Amino acid sequence: MGRAAREAAAILAATPTETKAAALRAAASAMRASADTILAANATDMARGAENGLSPAMLDRLKLDAGRLDGIASALEAVAGLPDPVGESLKNWTQPNGLRFERVRVPLGVVGIIYESRPNVTADAGALCLMAGNACILRGGSEAIESSRAIHAALVEGLRAAGLPEAAIQLVPTPDRAAVGAMLTASGLIDIIIPRGGKSLVARVQDEARVPVLAHLDGINHVYIDKAADPAKAQAIAVNAKLRRTGVCGAMETLLIDRAAPETLAKDIVAALLDAGCEVRTTPDLLPLDPRLLMADTEDWDTEYLDAILSVARVDGVEGAMAHIAAHGSHHTDAIVTEDEAAAERFLRGVDSAIVLHNASTQFADGGEFGFGAEIGISTGRLHARGPVALEGLTTYKTLVRGSGQVRPG
Amino acid sequence: MGRAAREAAAILAATPTETKAAALRAAASAMRASADTILAANATDMARGAENGLSPAMLDRLKLDAGRLDGIASALEAVAGLPDPVGESLKNWTQPNGLRFERVRVPLGVVGIIYESRPNVTADAGALCLMAGNACILRGGSEAIESSRAIHAALVEGLRAAGLPEAAIQLVPTPDRAAVGAMLTASGLIDIIIPRGGKSLVARVQDEARVPVLAHLDGINHVYIDKAADPAKAQAIAVNAKLRRTGVCGAMETLLIDRAAPETLAKDIVAALLDAGCEVRTTPDLLPLDPRLLMADTEDWDTEYLDAILSVARVDGVEGAMAHIAAHGSHHTDAIVTEDEAAAERFLRGVDSAIVLHNASTQFADGGEFGFGAEIGISTGRLHARGPVALEGLTTYKTLVRGSGQVRPG
Repeated sequence: MGRAAREAAAILAATPTETKAAALRAAASAMRASADTILAANATDMARGAENGLSPAMLDRLKLDAGRLDGIASALEAVAGLPDPVGESLKNWTQPNGLRFERVRVPLGVVGIIYESRPNVTADAGALCLMAGNACILRGGSEAIESSRAIHAALVEGLRAAGLPEAAIQLVPTPDRAAVGAMLTASGLIDIIIPRGGKSLVARVQDEARVPVLAHLDGINHVYIDKAADPAKAQAIAVNAKLRRTGVCGAMETLLIDRAAPETLAKDIVAALLDAGCEVRTTPDLLPLDPRLLMADTEDWDTEYLDAILSVARVDGVEGAMAHIAAHGSHHTDAIVTEDEAAAERFLRGVDSAIVLHNASTQFADGGEFGFGAEIGISTGRLHARGPVALEGLTTYKTLVRGSGQVRPG
Repeated sequence: MGRAAREAAAILAATPTETKAAALRAAASAMRASADTILAANATDMARGAENGLSPAMLDRLKLDAGRLDGIASALEAVAGLPDPVGESLKNWTQPNGLRFERVRVPLGVVGIIYESRPNVTADAGALCLMAGNACILRGGSEAIESSRAIHAALVEGLRAAGLPEAAIQLVPTPDRAAVGAMLTASGLIDIIIPRGGKSLVARVQDEARVPVLAHLDGINHVYIDKAADPAKAQAIAVNAKLRRTGVCGAMETLLIDRAAPETLAKDIVAALLDAGCEVRTTPDLLPLDPRLLMADTEDWDTEYLDAILSVARVDGVEGAMAHIAAHGSHHTDAIVTEDEAAAERFLRGVDSAIVLHNASTQFADGGEFGFGAEIGISTGRLHARGPVALEGLTTYKTLVRGSGQVRPG
């Protein structure tokens, strides 16, 4: 599969935008045309999942219906309409000896995606890799294998319709653990592995991989409410950041409140969170604010709840907030709420996270919200790509040097 | 050391350009002031090296004299004059909901450099890391340890003079293999490892590292002489690409000649290379060109000689050259010589190498020649940085998002 992908990648690197887009549009049509087959395959997965005792949350992630399937097909069409990053001229410069340098964007090559039970990843990841000119090898979870196979068949139909090699998007047919091991050590055949799934999957990938990994780890995200915060914005952002969706990596996990902020500001925000059904854990000094508050213990400051639970602490201004975030954060997404521009800039510059926001919810940590059209994940690593990764993150560059016979002296 | 580096990195990330530059200038002065001490330390290394039977080439790499030391000090001053990449605004955009996005360059964090016997790497790598706002941990080879310690002392003097933490540039005091192992697995403390040295070092690092690696592998570089090549340019470029320095990674290792090129073109180039003292190995069809030619065997096409040896093959035009390079190249640096612009563009776009040149010598594969002011290595990987790596390659980015109270719907 690796060798076939490598050959396909060489073809895709030189494939015009319109051909890649045509393949994705044809795949969307094929997916709509074979909706019955895909939904039947999904029903098989769902039945086996129920038998195997999957949790309701996992079954919901696995489930497809006509609406969700149409959403997946529409996402393929949306990716087809994104600007093609390949060939983009990133930089041009000339040296005194007359050599003209041009840095141009090129595909990464072969991308390996290892994911769990969401069948939509098969389509989303395949589409993003293709549009960025990469071949991909998809290794989906066993829970969703029938659904993934049926969706993959539609993608292959799209590739065929556009005259592209079928190996451009390959699905590991039998999702055993050995396939993951083989992918993680396929140096020279796979250029990058992107794991999408829970902590244990990502940890295994990072531990065993001999191929570079673009991984997402914890999102222990903070919202800091400055003494100069607008109370209405502060309350709306805190509630949205925690509760819009509690299971996403951009959800707030710790709320930091400036010790110099008015007592009512803290009290109202905490009440709003509690009223909305959030469990709130805090330090002894804040307990009198509301009888529903619970005591936090030391682990709370380092916990990604991914649930309607929040820890709240008081800190000494922007510097105190930055110190807390440096000690407990995970370099994912952190926000400040303030009307003081200087405090905001200090926070934006000083917090070492992939995404740092001023007066906006941490739940904007998402490639779509960034305007990338889609995302293949959010990188918490520091190399290559940081934050939401979409088409650009699936490319690299090369340098073209145009001369007139120059040789290097000395 | 990792923890101290992490703390220093947090300070360096917010250090103004002028302070970093002042530290490097002070280090250059300290190096010049302590030239006697450094040269004495180097003499100790040289004596031990001779005793231990180091090759003349290795002893030459190890050797310092007044001129070389002054060159190292001048390089520190040159890095101090480079534009600071940190804080550079890379991209700005606004979303329909009013959120304003800004991607800014920030330091990578803590860089680990593992190198062999060249004592100048201690100064060069330390300077580049510092200027890009990174702390670094240097693990130099045991052959050069006295020289490296003496140079490192001057760097620390510079840091002190500028009021920067001494842990900004740390040298592993005892270069045992265990230190390498510890660095390679220091996830969370070291953000990137850059090995500088021979194949066995790089292979060990890539095999054992749990930290991302920016590595340089083989440079099996090609020059393709097209039928439309200017004969004088072709000859000058071929001789320079192979022989200017045979031991550098940008040296040509295989010459490809268009089957449709005039016989005299091939004959003259081969004669020029032979006349200049190069051993030339080729295929049976080319042997009649010159009695000094030797037969190549199949391994020659995949060999990085790093010596005055060259393999020469005939290929069918640009497409044939690209096929040969795809089969045998190492994605490092390849060149075409032609006056046919269309052929040149086809080659520039189609060859999947970090550096692709038209009418220029492959020996320009160098950060200094690219105008980067210096280089910490040439990356043959596809992620993060490709080709010569200097200050920019030692940074990453974060995204600042400025809002006015936006929360995410849905």
